[in-house]
Amino acid sequence: MAYINDNFSTLKPSYLFTEVAKRVSSYLEKNPSANIIRMGIGDVTLPLPKACIEAMHKAVDEMSVRETFRGYGPEQGYDFLREKISVFDYKAHGVDIAADEIFVSDGAKSDVGNIVDILGDNNVIAVTDPVYPVYVDTNIMAGRKIVYLPMNAENNFVPQIPDCKVDVVYLCFPNNPTGTVLTTEQLKIWVDYALQNNVLILFDAAYEAFITEKNVPHSIYEIDGAKQCAIEFRSYSKTAGFTGTRCSYTIVPQECTALGNDGKPHNLNALWKRRQCTKFNGTPYIIQRAAEAIYSQEGKQQVSDIICYYLQNANIIRNGLLSKGFEVYGGINSPYIWLKCPEKDSWAFFDYLLTEKNIVATPGAGFGPSGEGFLRLTAFNTTEKTQEAINRI
Amino acid sequence: MAYINDNFSTLKPSYLFTEVAKRVSSYLEKNPSANIIRMGIGDVTLPLPKACIEAMHKAVDEMSVRETFRGYGPEQGYDFLREKISVFDYKAHGVDIAADEIFVSDGAKSDVGNIVDILGDNNVIAVTDPVYPVYVDTNIMAGRKIVYLPMNAENNFVPQIPDCKVDVVYLCFPNNPTGTVLTTEQLKIWVDYALQNNVLILFDAAYEAFITEKNVPHSIYEIDGAKQCAIEFRSYSKTAGFTGTRCSYTIVPQECTALGNDGKPHNLNALWKRRQCTKFNGTPYIIQRAAEAIYSQEGKQQVSDIICYYLQNANIIRNGLLSKGFEVYGGINSPYIWLKCPEKDSWAFFDYLLTEKNIVATPGAGFGPSGEGFLRLTAFNTTEKTQEAINRI
Repeated sequence: MAYINDNFSTLKPSYLFTEVAKRVSSYLEKNPSANIIRMGIGDVTLPLPKACIEAMHKAVDEMSVRETFRGYGPEQGYDFLREKISVFDYKAHGVDIAADEIFVSDGAKSDVGNIVDILGDNNVIAVTDPVYPVYVDTNIMAGRKIVYLPMNAENNFVPQIPDCKVDVVYLCFPNNPTGTVLTTEQLKIWVDYALQNNVLILFDAAYEAFITEKNVPHSIYEIDGAKQCAIEFRSYSKTAGFTGTRCSYTIVPQECTALGNDGKPHNLNALWKRRQCTKFNGTPYIIQRAAEAIYSQEGKQQVSDIICYYLQNANIIRNGLLSKGFEVYGGINSPYIWLKCPEKDSWAFFDYLLTEKNIVATPGAGFGPSGEGFLRLTAFNTTEKTQEAINRI
Repeated sequence: MAYINDNFSTLKPSYLFTEVAKRVSSYLEKNPSANIIRMGIGDVTLPLPKACIEAMHKAVDEMSVRETFRGYGPEQGYDFLREKISVFDYKAHGVDIAADEIFVSDGAKSDVGNIVDILGDNNVIAVTDPVYPVYVDTNIMAGRKIVYLPMNAENNFVPQIPDCKVDVVYLCFPNNPTGTVLTTEQLKIWVDYALQNNVLILFDAAYEAFITEKNVPHSIYEIDGAKQCAIEFRSYSKTAGFTGTRCSYTIVPQECTALGNDGKPHNLNALWKRRQCTKFNGTPYIIQRAAEAIYSQEGKQQVSDIICYYLQNANIIRNGLLSKGFEVYGGINSPYIWLKCPEKDSWAFFDYLLTEKNIVATPGAGFGPSGEGFLRLTAFNTTEKTQEAINRI
């Protein structure tokens, strides 16, 4: 008699973006000529950098002849990519991360989701609120207790150290959905807390490339001691436009440990390696070559141009809304703008923007209790449409 | 205080192929001029079909311009691919599988590994022995009890219905590692047992394209009632050479259920969809276009040529060894040959073949207790090297 994982029954039935899509398509059915501007889902619109395109054509050709064909690659990613990551994403910023601490994968969502496998179900999990739903749902699937740490205008979107015992904390900065950041000093408080309490920080740095301000850390490992208590997730999705190309990586430092039933610290790098070698067979060779090309001279320039384009859009949204008297957060070190709704109900304001202004946003309430009363706007549309959307409001 | 998943501590520390690689490289260090022929790991050697190469070049170009660029795709795969699978892999064989029962992913190893997420940890798991280690390790990671069902020369490699209560059964036919198959009648016994006992069958059909004999089912859904009790895994790895390109799919029929704590049957399709939407962001667009090309006229011919090439190698191994008086199984509907060692110890015979004949096989003992005394040989080398290996023995 086969049994389901009953924790699935405690998940909320509908996923945020499904509901958004449903309301948009229902509106479009009734108003087929509506000129909708989408600023809801965090998907990019600019094509892949030319350097990546060239690298993929070359890699595809390699796969077409026996002499250069590649079969199974290392589950953790090819050294050609891991070494580039080590040099350009870490050493260049003064952080020492070795190639064997880098795990290349098919996406940050996969890694953020699958990391739960190596942790015990007795861990109490803290997430900031509003929150990227994946952190919550993946832990509910594992039957774990979840503690919410509010981030709101009152605490200036800086989550406070939990006042109860927690074991694992998810931090995402620059934050999705609020677009806000922690300064080096603010993040240091978290690292110190984690070290003192043997708490594990799961640090989602998917948006680090959007950081423009000086005192904002790009990696948690810029903070002393973080290698002992933090796993970091990175992504090429929003930087090089890899949302449909699928490549990212996760850092599990050799010093990073968590406790076993034997009362001893266990190396999480070894556990994650074992998990990946057992349940994953590596990222496509062709895609890893595309990711490698991001680190070439041209690749770096092309990615920088993409980021500038989206940040310019974020600036248009932020300043446009501010000048119209709205209360807004984010948009400086992030492609996300967190807009305070004039009235408390974020689904009502979502509906208003959709039906009256033909603009699709994402209701903050979908990201957790503290998201109520806010909307998330994204800077991934064209500059023209972004400008038009702001003009409409 | 963060805790690890302590089930990892009960895993055997070394993975089979790591130990094989270690012994080979240790031998090569001492004998750098040795002309090693690798027939161990199940990786392919022929390049990708031309149809896939052309499709990928086209898709890469689409990703280079805004108008045709693709961002996030559906987590379950694009309809263009799911519909081809439905028509060519199922309807063409008289089996009705709808597009929404097909989940495209980055590999059968991922799906076989991740499927454990939707099942309760109270399930007792049965695996055939010898066994693909992933079935065992992923369930040990979840703390589940495992029952081994021996497959050996005595029972003609047909596993017997368990004599104790089990909830989930993994069946892989054509089998890895033995290369043996079940006839339609033999598989029907399993489906009937599953239906009568509400057992879930996880059917790994990764090698179905190698089937040459008439009375061997390509899909478990050829058996009446299987849609109510079976999930099927397919792969492009060995057929179209996608081991480094990464694409596969899993079938979860709408009728397929397992029991919840509420005592009611729950739809596993909905659970798997939720799991994939939460922890996975789809297979790269470019790779899905390559997979689609497999179903074109040229693609089908090219894949058929690849399969023929490997089956011819399998035939050389099988008949060569038989003619030298060895006891061998498999190799007719499979790229794998299961060779009985002249003496009982399979690691000893592995070492003998490595050091005396410079042939790398995989010791059967690494696949489970009933694998002791056997070696797995694979047909994925070139015909020339395969012939040479057999001449050397």
